[in-house]
Amino acid sequence: MQFAKQINRLGTETAFAVSAQARAWAAKGHKVYPFHLGDINLATPENIVDATLKAIQDGNTGYCPSEGILPLRETLSHDVGSKRGVTYRPENVSVQPGGKPTIGKFIAAVMNPGDEVLYPNPGYPIYESQIEYQGGTAVPYGYIQTESGFDIDLDRLKSSITEKTIAIIYNNYQNPITAESSQEEMEAIAELAIENDLWVLADDAYYEMIYQGNARSIVSIPGMKERTIILYTFSKKFAMTGWRVGGAVGPERIINIISKLNVNAESCTTHFIQHAMVEALTGDSSGSDAILATLKERRDASVAGLNAIDGIQIPTPRSTFYLFPNVNEVMKRKGFNHVDQLQVGALENANVSFCTREHFGRSSSDETDFYIRFAYSGISTDDINEGLGKLKDYFESS
Amino acid sequence: MQFAKQINRLGTETAFAVSAQARAWAAKGHKVYPFHLGDINLATPENIVDATLKAIQDGNTGYCPSEGILPLRETLSHDVGSKRGVTYRPENVSVQPGGKPTIGKFIAAVMNPGDEVLYPNPGYPIYESQIEYQGGTAVPYGYIQTESGFDIDLDRLKSSITEKTIAIIYNNYQNPITAESSQEEMEAIAELAIENDLWVLADDAYYEMIYQGNARSIVSIPGMKERTIILYTFSKKFAMTGWRVGGAVGPERIINIISKLNVNAESCTTHFIQHAMVEALTGDSSGSDAILATLKERRDASVAGLNAIDGIQIPTPRSTFYLFPNVNEVMKRKGFNHVDQLQVGALENANVSFCTREHFGRSSSDETDFYIRFAYSGISTDDINEGLGKLKDYFESS
Repeated sequence: MQFAKQINRLGTETAFAVSAQARAWAAKGHKVYPFHLGDINLATPENIVDATLKAIQDGNTGYCPSEGILPLRETLSHDVGSKRGVTYRPENVSVQPGGKPTIGKFIAAVMNPGDEVLYPNPGYPIYESQIEYQGGTAVPYGYIQTESGFDIDLDRLKSSITEKTIAIIYNNYQNPITAESSQEEMEAIAELAIENDLWVLADDAYYEMIYQGNARSIVSIPGMKERTIILYTFSKKFAMTGWRVGGAVGPERIINIISKLNVNAESCTTHFIQHAMVEALTGDSSGSDAILATLKERRDASVAGLNAIDGIQIPTPRSTFYLFPNVNEVMKRKGFNHVDQLQVGALENANVSFCTREHFGRSSSDETDFYIRFAYSGISTDDINEGLGKLKDYFESS
Repeated sequence: MQFAKQINRLGTETAFAVSAQARAWAAKGHKVYPFHLGDINLATPENIVDATLKAIQDGNTGYCPSEGILPLRETLSHDVGSKRGVTYRPENVSVQPGGKPTIGKFIAAVMNPGDEVLYPNPGYPIYESQIEYQGGTAVPYGYIQTESGFDIDLDRLKSSITEKTIAIIYNNYQNPITAESSQEEMEAIAELAIENDLWVLADDAYYEMIYQGNARSIVSIPGMKERTIILYTFSKKFAMTGWRVGGAVGPERIINIISKLNVNAESCTTHFIQHAMVEALTGDSSGSDAILATLKERRDASVAGLNAIDGIQIPTPRSTFYLFPNVNEVMKRKGFNHVDQLQVGALENANVSFCTREHFGRSSSDETDFYIRFAYSGISTDDINEGLGKLKDYFESS
């Protein structure tokens, strides 16, 4: 009996290996400071839990339409549209079991084998995996470190577009590097997409994880709505990563294809949870406000704790719940050549667990800088302060 | 901007069109008797709902492992194994968001483009769709009507095996035709699988919807456990079709591949629901016993109501919640050539809605009999009696 050859092209989230290392270290009796998790250790707001129970008791336990229940499609189309200054109707929404499913289904809907898709690297590893698994060529574009954060390497992006390029994946408010486009950068990407007639997957997973000011979306730029599919998720804003509910929002024709993929893949997203998501979007928002406030406090503690380390200097990102410090000086001090030496060293010497650049897509041969990624969504402010104090001792020792 | 060509090979569940027709007819003020739904209009047992709420309150709202939580994998491996007389360990289980995801992931794990997969036709339409969408050749095998039900057309099945055949999909306790293999038939299929070194997807969705006696599984036959993947679902037994939780159970190597597909497709199945499924399998079973008792009552009413119609004669199936009567005589009386004439006619003249053979895979050119499918899982016994009375009047009029 054989296995399918294409499974060899299927990637994974190698960050799970870091979780396993942290668990093994904790099992030896160590208190681990978990900065490796992109998960949230806060409770889902009570009004959402109450609405879930009510939806079950009201009998919403059978199948629902594959594209999602109409009340949620109506509410989500209005919410996503009004926050981005565009108009969507329920026909523009396909409810999904999480944010992630939109990645694979978008690629399935638009890509033929041999096509090229541009994707951010460092970036969420499932982009690279899904493009290659489905028979396309994953063409990475990178970022340039600046004083205020990171800019997309637009020159490289432009020069990577060929006749085979059919789509670009754009993750503003970026995981893992926290990058946020300026208006000019966003317009440059929109211009490239329009000029080259590309689809755009706008991964807006962190669009509402903004600690001050307003978010900007590429879909607001004229000419973009008709070529953009938004990846929407309830996971972050409402601390419900394990509930598995999100949506694809975009032009009706591609949404219909994605909903047909739903029929084939999973029938529908959990029925009663969809009713609770109407409450999440229209009901009392004090729960999600409190989640954002807590994460902001953790961000400030994490930025301060990292900047207190000799050789680390990071700006304060306005969004996401990650930090992506350059650790060139620490690596030099330690005499390390591979960033995983620093990762394992920090776990074993300071009980601090984090991911590195290597967990977010294959690095290219011309990358010379070293980066590590801290997630502050799954660790309390007290533990952030305590853990980063220990990390300072370790990073500053040679 | 293009769409992917392979989307043209993607099928769907055409039964949804029947639902739409029934809804439209009801919207005109008619009371529709819904026999078209493979859904269950009964409440999920209370102890499962209570366990769900407790799991949320206990904080199981973040991500969980892609392969499922260990307590559920332990419980499910024991439950599935002990009910089939084989031994499974947690490593043999990959939790899924429903029963359906196992179909596409099984095919993704074992099939290369150009390979042939045998599948039942009439059968669940997603088999055909997923095989062809993923670039394989869907090779149908059929059934022969007998006095007691249906037998698999073993001669045709044997003659359809070629060097390219890599798997057979086997749905004992079959949707839509209710077929159940004799021990001899099951052994013949196992022998073919072993002789030809084929994978087997055992779609056991209705394995526990047995109204009397015990169920038999092909995995119990020596030599089969190592080549069989069981599609398990919580949907039917516990009246939780809309919850979306099930599992793939099989050899560890293919389960690991399926779990890697989980990482790429949806991260994980809803976390807190998995804890409630441990309760479903180990707690008070009076809820699921009552569901089965209610469905048995409906089965008996449906069989009696259909057999009261002149020209229809069906045996009483021991399992599933479907009936698949031959309607050749009714078609002749009506002067119809296409079974959808009977379906639309029954809706508009008797307010009775059902699916036909045409909704369960492409029919072959040598099929001359006409069949319709009744599902009795979504309609009360009183409405079954009332609706089938009206249907009798319509079917018996010329």
